[in-house]
Amino acid sequence: MSYSMPELIGTKRDGGVLAAEELEWIITEYTADRIPDYQLSAFLMAIIFRGLNGDELSAWTDAMLHSGDVLDLSATSMPKVDKHSTGGVGDKISIPLAPLVTACGVAIPMMSGRGLGHTGGTLDKLETIPGFETRLDPEVFTRQLDELGLVLAGQSETLVPADRRIYALRDASGTVPAIPLIASSIMSKKLAEDLDGLVLDVKIGSGAFMKDVASGTQLAETMVGIGRSHDTPVVGFLTDMDQPLGTEVGNANEMVESIAILRGEGPPDSTELTLRLGEEMLLLGGVAADRAEARAQLQAAVVSGSGLEVFAKVIEAQGGDPSVLEDPSLLPSAASAHTVVADRAGFVERCDALAVGRSAVRLGAGRQAKEDDVDPGVGITIHAKVGDAVTVGDALATVRYNSEPQLRACLPVLEPAWVIADEAPPSRPLILGEVK
Amino acid sequence: MSYSMPELIGTKRDGGVLAAEELEWIITEYTADRIPDYQLSAFLMAIIFRGLNGDELSAWTDAMLHSGDVLDLSATSMPKVDKHSTGGVGDKISIPLAPLVTACGVAIPMMSGRGLGHTGGTLDKLETIPGFETRLDPEVFTRQLDELGLVLAGQSETLVPADRRIYALRDASGTVPAIPLIASSIMSKKLAEDLDGLVLDVKIGSGAFMKDVASGTQLAETMVGIGRSHDTPVVGFLTDMDQPLGTEVGNANEMVESIAILRGEGPPDSTELTLRLGEEMLLLGGVAADRAEARAQLQAAVVSGSGLEVFAKVIEAQGGDPSVLEDPSLLPSAASAHTVVADRAGFVERCDALAVGRSAVRLGAGRQAKEDDVDPGVGITIHAKVGDAVTVGDALATVRYNSEPQLRACLPVLEPAWVIADEAPPSRPLILGEVK
Repeated sequence: MSYSMPELIGTKRDGGVLAAEELEWIITEYTADRIPDYQLSAFLMAIIFRGLNGDELSAWTDAMLHSGDVLDLSATSMPKVDKHSTGGVGDKISIPLAPLVTACGVAIPMMSGRGLGHTGGTLDKLETIPGFETRLDPEVFTRQLDELGLVLAGQSETLVPADRRIYALRDASGTVPAIPLIASSIMSKKLAEDLDGLVLDVKIGSGAFMKDVASGTQLAETMVGIGRSHDTPVVGFLTDMDQPLGTEVGNANEMVESIAILRGEGPPDSTELTLRLGEEMLLLGGVAADRAEARAQLQAAVVSGSGLEVFAKVIEAQGGDPSVLEDPSLLPSAASAHTVVADRAGFVERCDALAVGRSAVRLGAGRQAKEDDVDPGVGITIHAKVGDAVTVGDALATVRYNSEPQLRACLPVLEPAWVIADEAPPSRPLILGEVK
Repeated sequence: MSYSMPELIGTKRDGGVLAAEELEWIITEYTADRIPDYQLSAFLMAIIFRGLNGDELSAWTDAMLHSGDVLDLSATSMPKVDKHSTGGVGDKISIPLAPLVTACGVAIPMMSGRGLGHTGGTLDKLETIPGFETRLDPEVFTRQLDELGLVLAGQSETLVPADRRIYALRDASGTVPAIPLIASSIMSKKLAEDLDGLVLDVKIGSGAFMKDVASGTQLAETMVGIGRSHDTPVVGFLTDMDQPLGTEVGNANEMVESIAILRGEGPPDSTELTLRLGEEMLLLGGVAADRAEARAQLQAAVVSGSGLEVFAKVIEAQGGDPSVLEDPSLLPSAASAHTVVADRAGFVERCDALAVGRSAVRLGAGRQAKEDDVDPGVGITIHAKVGDAVTVGDALATVRYNSEPQLRACLPVLEPAWVIADEAPPSRPLILGEVK
């Protein structure tokens, strides 16, 4: 069947509904270079204004999912559950979470991305481990999942090629911010992983893509709906990203904090979020009867060191040096340190995630453009978070840097991140909502 | 100054207002191939939803206008006024109107287009005159306007190149139907003609692009506003295009009717519209004090034959045979004729312009695609218009055709154009509104 793309664009533009075959045709033809970029970008802009209804979104996601290979992980006997975060500042949760969950009997075929803009990326953090390889052949990926129950890899080139093409076009044509497009991009990649369940962490706040609970809820509900139409249970969390998560921002910095969480020595907020998301993954995997049982299993994996043990095996399997887990000083480390101090006494009212994230990019920890390299050893350690009492001269953060220009670029953005007030601000929940 | 196109797209997408320099930059860079089609098409789709405010539209039109040459017709001593129609079925008004207005002392540097889809084009009709040339060099154009006060030519390649580029992209990317884009396309070309005034005929109804008075009024007001911001007085008419205009549809057919109007022997509706638009052109040109005086001058140009005389000189100057004016049988004529008759008695309630226009395309009088040729001799003569009484067997139309396949393609679309009812429908005005 063949359609006229200008007519399909016109239908969406005028508020009409497209049939599953029409949406599938668009994805197939675009991926095969038979629809030009200028038609798809106009269509995507029409979607920004008109949206996609549930059936359209399911068909669109399905077509993306089937634009390339779909993993067959049926050889893995364990239940398979993954986790996805919409991205934030200091969000390293995937790294401690995955080994703990796998230690409790749930396999995770995790494919992650790199950082872009003020948000970090799991791959960049994993690659601070000397030798760690995130580009795995599909057979290696499948075998390792079967043997260890956990793979920490980059996105496969053969999975969902339509998403890579469409994402690049959205980025260049001002058509990124549309919930159906964001949801289908995430869900097509996750559904291609052949999962039994998925936990989503939708970040909300200044350092997140979604600035408020309402739009975050809409995104979470949209993704849960796509999962439902593909018979994959999805649980979505809305969590705070108005201040950075945990205490470390930067690639090696976040690996250090991840190892601390795995040892039960992490900061309260990142530790709690790890355990809360882990509970839900265990429930989706069917290896725990309720949240309390799930939490007990996860805590046991911390205390017994079984989580660290899974991580060590995965690092070794992927060519890395597992001795970093015992000796984090083997991770890259910047040469110099600078302390940002409080210039007044009071309570931290705000520690702006966006400012911290942007300052980390300027420091060299993140990317302005896809082509940029990251400096793995630079980063920011946060000493004062929202609600903390400080006096004049107290350390708010330590910046690790390799060159003066890095530091000079970072500080003017980092320092104003803190607002110190006379009164302690009302306490704010870490978990703002849940959607299933 | 340089801008980021994805950011400018984002501003418009989110409902923001762009600065004149930003809009000018977009037009300049796109015309110079430094902005890719996929960015402009997304931007145009954002305009469809967000619009352009008066200042933005004026800047956008101005940038298009200055993307190429602008005519300098200051050597012409007469006032210069043009007319533009948004296109319809049987709309040949430009052809009799222009010589009559010029005979009254107003110069017209008219640049017209070809037919596409169900609407005819002035150039195709003019080219039914043996030898008539519509591609004129700029110097020839300017000299003829100076000498005769009238040129009937095709759009110059050097005028408003941005419009040709953008129009082709809109056509292929589903971004045609946006009032700011339609208005700026028309007005940039007309403003490049160095006019003292412009009369617009915005067609409304089934055979027109604008289906209702509200949207037609909005388009007319938008174009009048652009004219005002460029110090060019514009008068817009909204006129009926629910049934074909006049009695002839097809290229030679419409030339025959045009000559009849010039002789004072045309059908009432097309004659009246010619005179009404002509009045306004004389007023804009400052050669008549009021409508009554203008109409008297135009009627004198009919009666004296001075309108025909202007047309004869223009035809001769442009390489055509002016004897067609005396002997219309020199125009191309199809070999065969078929009569469509009424199958019941009553009053014509509807004679659908869109159906007649589409049937004319199938007959060969128009184009499905830009590359198509037209058959100049085929056409439809309408004998029964809305309100006319008919009895069984009365002729509704005569179809002139050159081949059986043309006729077989035409009739199934043409015949249902007529709806005959027991009662006469309420009479409908030809002129539905006026905007200045």
